[in-house]
Amino acid sequence: MELKVNIERLRKDLESLRTIGRVSTGGVSRTSYSAADLQARRWYVDRCADAGIEVFVDGLGNMVAQDSKESSDQAPVWSGSHIDSVPNGGHLDGALGAVAALECLRRLIEAKVPLNRPVRAVVFTDEEGNYEHLLGSSGLARGFTSEQLEGMEGRDNDRLVDRLDELGWDLDAATRTRIDHGEIHAFVELHIEQGPKLEATGTDIGVVTSIVGLSGGKVEFEGKPDHAGTTPMRQRKDALLASAEFLTTLPGIAASISDHSVITCGLITVEPGGANVVPGTARLTLDFRDPDADRLRALAAGIAGSAAEVAARHEVGLKWLPDTFIEPVPLDPGIRELIIASVKQLGLSHIDIPSGAGHDSQNIAWLAPTAMVFVPSKGGRSHSPAEDTAWGDIENGANVLLATLLALASREADRPAHPFTAQQTRRTMELINPSEGVGNACTN
Amino acid sequence: MELKVNIERLRKDLESLRTIGRVSTGGVSRTSYSAADLQARRWYVDRCADAGIEVFVDGLGNMVAQDSKESSDQAPVWSGSHIDSVPNGGHLDGALGAVAALECLRRLIEAKVPLNRPVRAVVFTDEEGNYEHLLGSSGLARGFTSEQLEGMEGRDNDRLVDRLDELGWDLDAATRTRIDHGEIHAFVELHIEQGPKLEATGTDIGVVTSIVGLSGGKVEFEGKPDHAGTTPMRQRKDALLASAEFLTTLPGIAASISDHSVITCGLITVEPGGANVVPGTARLTLDFRDPDADRLRALAAGIAGSAAEVAARHEVGLKWLPDTFIEPVPLDPGIRELIIASVKQLGLSHIDIPSGAGHDSQNIAWLAPTAMVFVPSKGGRSHSPAEDTAWGDIENGANVLLATLLALASREADRPAHPFTAQQTRRTMELINPSEGVGNACTN
Repeated sequence: MELKVNIERLRKDLESLRTIGRVSTGGVSRTSYSAADLQARRWYVDRCADAGIEVFVDGLGNMVAQDSKESSDQAPVWSGSHIDSVPNGGHLDGALGAVAALECLRRLIEAKVPLNRPVRAVVFTDEEGNYEHLLGSSGLARGFTSEQLEGMEGRDNDRLVDRLDELGWDLDAATRTRIDHGEIHAFVELHIEQGPKLEATGTDIGVVTSIVGLSGGKVEFEGKPDHAGTTPMRQRKDALLASAEFLTTLPGIAASISDHSVITCGLITVEPGGANVVPGTARLTLDFRDPDADRLRALAAGIAGSAAEVAARHEVGLKWLPDTFIEPVPLDPGIRELIIASVKQLGLSHIDIPSGAGHDSQNIAWLAPTAMVFVPSKGGRSHSPAEDTAWGDIENGANVLLATLLALASREADRPAHPFTAQQTRRTMELINPSEGVGNACTN
Repeated sequence: MELKVNIERLRKDLESLRTIGRVSTGGVSRTSYSAADLQARRWYVDRCADAGIEVFVDGLGNMVAQDSKESSDQAPVWSGSHIDSVPNGGHLDGALGAVAALECLRRLIEAKVPLNRPVRAVVFTDEEGNYEHLLGSSGLARGFTSEQLEGMEGRDNDRLVDRLDELGWDLDAATRTRIDHGEIHAFVELHIEQGPKLEATGTDIGVVTSIVGLSGGKVEFEGKPDHAGTTPMRQRKDALLASAEFLTTLPGIAASISDHSVITCGLITVEPGGANVVPGTARLTLDFRDPDADRLRALAAGIAGSAAEVAARHEVGLKWLPDTFIEPVPLDPGIRELIIASVKQLGLSHIDIPSGAGHDSQNIAWLAPTAMVFVPSKGGRSHSPAEDTAWGDIENGANVLLATLLALASREADRPAHPFTAQQTRRTMELINPSEGVGNACTN
């Protein structure tokens, strides 16, 4: 008989976690290192303790949960996600992948399945980037110097190091979170899609092909501020009007590159900013993404070209300050095959899908073969109290994850042996004892 | 020989006034009742004293300057403007008309010209509306209750009545500024054009036909906030994109109504306002103007229609909250004829021109026949340190003003006599003695 997750237990856990940091809108606010985040960490450690699972915590608060009876010296298979959230966010973004990984580990322990390598459940810190985009997984993949950590500020202008200090955490340990390529055998993250494609196509499972490449930039049109009453329309150099024409070209530029290309202007400001003054300056903040590196560059070129054309036609000045490119990350074809096999074994449907959002997987992919499994998001909504996924879809996703982890952990040591062993990871992870670090933190 | 202004004295005065409240950009910041405004008032009263001119000040600080030997009991001819400015504004907006009127009065006194009615120079308070649009002239035309005055706040959230109290002014007198229709025989205001038409047509003088009608409103597009990475372009309800399309329709709407129609969006905000979030809500503040009341209404209808069309096409919600209409004010044809005769007598060129900006004249027009004279603005610029007018143009404008005032003051009492005499105005104006009110204020 196939091994399945205990969906009732998983559901109870997700509904329980949802009450931590719950806000009046029905959404959750669990900013990293906040009281709610610390309470959620305590909750997670308690769930692990109930199941005979030990939790190791590193200097940034990344948590790695493992069978307390684990004995293998092979590089482990990791699975997990995050339990922090955006302010007034949804209850599944991160939480689903974190709790489902724990459920998979529990089932493997309960069922006493013989494995060739251990499976561990992980929770990454500050995925939502209050202090730094993908803070915890970046700490694992690249590490941070104390100077870098000292420069990090949250949205309330609080310094990360001050917060860690308040919590009594070891600041030095926060600079020693990096682990090496090969310390992990593989990583799989279950996540909600955060987009509408699975729902729209009636598909159970998204097999993620890549994590999107991302860039952005600031466009500034410089016209002439003038009196709104006395300057005839034809003699204006209206920076907002130029911006408006530029904005209307963006959907066409995206469509000309690929169906997966997106361009967003989420912020706009004008100066002088008076009701009766023609805008002299308009500043737009752009975000653009594509799963392919070349197409990402083509998007940047299209945007710059359109801005220049509009500026010339309106006879206004233009500054285009592009951000650096965050390269797309292709996910591991071998694990994708295992996922597809699991999907078929379970009688489910799947499509290949690129991830338009950033995820901890894009960091862990630098350390080990990595893949992601998506389940449908109702209405494509996320980062919102409206975020939701049917329990049947959650069950499907968790079972695909379990089957994939089982397949990975059942692999013989057929890859080149890596000089570092699981003990290396353990050494890094035990710098903060959960019963002290997490436990004490909760009382703050 | 024709009576002319003393351009050297006028120039010296304008250059002297320009140093009061001067800021590093070269512009002036003389917010009403600020230290700079009070210093400018003191300066004005001193100039008057030098010329044997008395200044009467009402409870809002409107100043009326008259020959100390004035004896006529006929309703006076008024001329003037304001000496407050917008922050970092130009040195001529208001100041030109205020100082030129004083110069005209000085010349009439010096030349001992026999007049059938007195000429008085006036300075209106807070034309730029830190506390209320056209505060001083509104106080003369309509008056304010103490409740109205108590509700007025400046851009720094300071209350008008607190400021008057600080200055030791009589708050009760501020409610007794209204004067009656007929207390003034006529009013003429010299002003810079604040637009480019005179310069563009190489014309010396603009004879203002009307002061523009004005309205505005708030347009709100309500789309759906979505993740900028995971929501495909075609599935978005982007409130900013709808706004951009709407904005691009505004020049066409204005052009379809009249050459004098203007529509401006000077303020725009989006929510949630995150670099990686599709804007769910966009709010635009509009200002639109036309010298004709029907065309002003046609503009409003065109704007509302376009917003509805764009909202329907983008499938986003729409709120349109129009402001009340400020009706256009036609200026007096009789005085306009006198202005044109003066222009011809001086060998100058002129065009009829509507005023796109609001002016104290639009209030005084409710009290007496009113007209305005415009001189060219370099590059059409105003409300900016770049505001400037050639001294030759200033001389022309001041001489046209002088000739027009002379013609008005030489008129026989050929209109129906009004029951109120000049004494009534004097009664209102002497509530605050300038040597106390203005003088004391300057030490604050």
